[in-house]
Amino acid sequence: MSFDRLISGIIRTKNPTVAGLDPKLDFIPAYIKEQAYAQYGKTLEGAAEALFVFNKGLIDALCDIVPAVKPQAAYYEMYGYHGVHALYRTIAYAKEKGMFVITDAKRNDIGTTMEAYAKAHLGVTDVEGEQLEAFGADALTVNGYLGTDGIKPLTAICKSFDKGIFVLVKTSNPSSGELQDRTLDDGLSIYRTMGNMCEAWGEELMGAYGYSGVGAVVGATYPAQLGELRKALPHTFFLVPGYGAQGGGAADVAPAFDDKGLGAVINSSRGIMCAWKKEEGLAPEEYAQAARREAIRMRDEITSLVKIG
Amino acid sequence: MSFDRLISGIIRTKNPTVAGLDPKLDFIPAYIKEQAYAQYGKTLEGAAEALFVFNKGLIDALCDIVPAVKPQAAYYEMYGYHGVHALYRTIAYAKEKGMFVITDAKRNDIGTTMEAYAKAHLGVTDVEGEQLEAFGADALTVNGYLGTDGIKPLTAICKSFDKGIFVLVKTSNPSSGELQDRTLDDGLSIYRTMGNMCEAWGEELMGAYGYSGVGAVVGATYPAQLGELRKALPHTFFLVPGYGAQGGGAADVAPAFDDKGLGAVINSSRGIMCAWKKEEGLAPEEYAQAARREAIRMRDEITSLVKIG
Repeated sequence: MSFDRLISGIIRTKNPTVAGLDPKLDFIPAYIKEQAYAQYGKTLEGAAEALFVFNKGLIDALCDIVPAVKPQAAYYEMYGYHGVHALYRTIAYAKEKGMFVITDAKRNDIGTTMEAYAKAHLGVTDVEGEQLEAFGADALTVNGYLGTDGIKPLTAICKSFDKGIFVLVKTSNPSSGELQDRTLDDGLSIYRTMGNMCEAWGEELMGAYGYSGVGAVVGATYPAQLGELRKALPHTFFLVPGYGAQGGGAADVAPAFDDKGLGAVINSSRGIMCAWKKEEGLAPEEYAQAARREAIRMRDEITSLVKIG
Repeated sequence: MSFDRLISGIIRTKNPTVAGLDPKLDFIPAYIKEQAYAQYGKTLEGAAEALFVFNKGLIDALCDIVPAVKPQAAYYEMYGYHGVHALYRTIAYAKEKGMFVITDAKRNDIGTTMEAYAKAHLGVTDVEGEQLEAFGADALTVNGYLGTDGIKPLTAICKSFDKGIFVLVKTSNPSSGELQDRTLDDGLSIYRTMGNMCEAWGEELMGAYGYSGVGAVVGATYPAQLGELRKALPHTFFLVPGYGAQGGGAADVAPAFDDKGLGAVINSSRGIMCAWKKEEGLAPEEYAQAARREAIRMRDEITSLVKIG
């Protein structure tokens, strides 16, 4: 019901980061793709198999030093239901290896439909009395544009299954300010208003570290807003995308943390997945070890500024 | 690139409605479920098979009188990748029967990721030079909280593949006003501001009927806002949920239409899917004919107030 399991993982590994698993085919070494195509053809099924094999290698190389993974649903849906099967297998494998899994799917809908998404991604689906996990992630990113009744079905499931959600507050993209930075008639920005809603939604889901199960997505590309929101939202845990390839550095993400070095988890996707392409003379078979080296470099860079515990 | 194909279908059938395919297991006659479970067990796969068989019957019964279907992604994701396979099969079958397919998935993300969703749901995915359709819908519902760079990848794909999007503007749920009705410092509401963004995003996607390929979702449960937005957004086609089970009636949706009876398509999900449960003494095998009777009743009710063409 809170992010205690994620925070415990961060403390255990002394690493407040999450590895984004957004596997484009371009990111995957040729030998993995060729094996998959040999088995399933140059099809959506073949591509999906390559995604999973690539992810499995990354998870094996990262699971003892990185507490969490964040598969991005779009990059799996691109390969149709076979891709979605690869998402399911990725989530299951990461959980088997002890990682906390955040499905980045930014789901949103009206109450009854949001309940279906909540069951799908965080809870269980009832089939004639059988309780079955459809995807079984530990946390889900969601969009709060529809207000409270689009969030309540999620918090109910978070309570029952010890899961969490991250609501989009201030996103990392260049045009995020078009709507999110606009000022309302009470003088507050929309992103701040959404942040305040997260604090309210999380009240019933408070955890042992002082953070609730309703977190917020706040981009590393907007460090001033990160700092503003950290102060304004003391019980809201942050998922921070935008580090690395999108331009954010360690100094940019430092304001996301509280004085115990908690309160945020920093995502890197391309930086970790594509590390193997940047090491000169590296055999493609070493892609996962290159990802591990980049994950360690990122951890050390961030923890040089942020002391955990 | 516009909604011309949808509008042509509305004119041909003289029916400005769309049948929502949100198939909960409770909505499906027992004989369909029993056959599916006999084949696949009481599993996600068995449930997914039942969803598809149920949908197929509805599509067969509706395709000559209803121009479009709107499968709601959440009710398929609930059954995992098997459910997503049922979504794929439903989309393919409805297109085969000549229906316009709106995938209601409310997707949203930053630009590069939105491009993946756009390819997944509306365009094609490249696998080593093979151009493959992952889902292949005609239109997709999306959430504009991230601003222009989360929409542009969609409009590019709409242009290339003659597809459309519906952006959430004023949603049908009770708490939609919490954020969407708030007033910005220029005096406009958030929903109106989002509506204005739809007009701007659609400029390059104008169709023969004066409507662009960037539509808006506006709930039947807020008739005053429907009328306000119809006047303010002359080139934005509306997808109107909330008729029937959510409480909207024909008089509530009438303001969504222009003086030619165009400009909107009205969705009914539970009303059509569950019609068979309301006719006394009906054999469950007649569920699709009951759906057809309800679709005709809905069409006649709406077109008694709205003259098309």
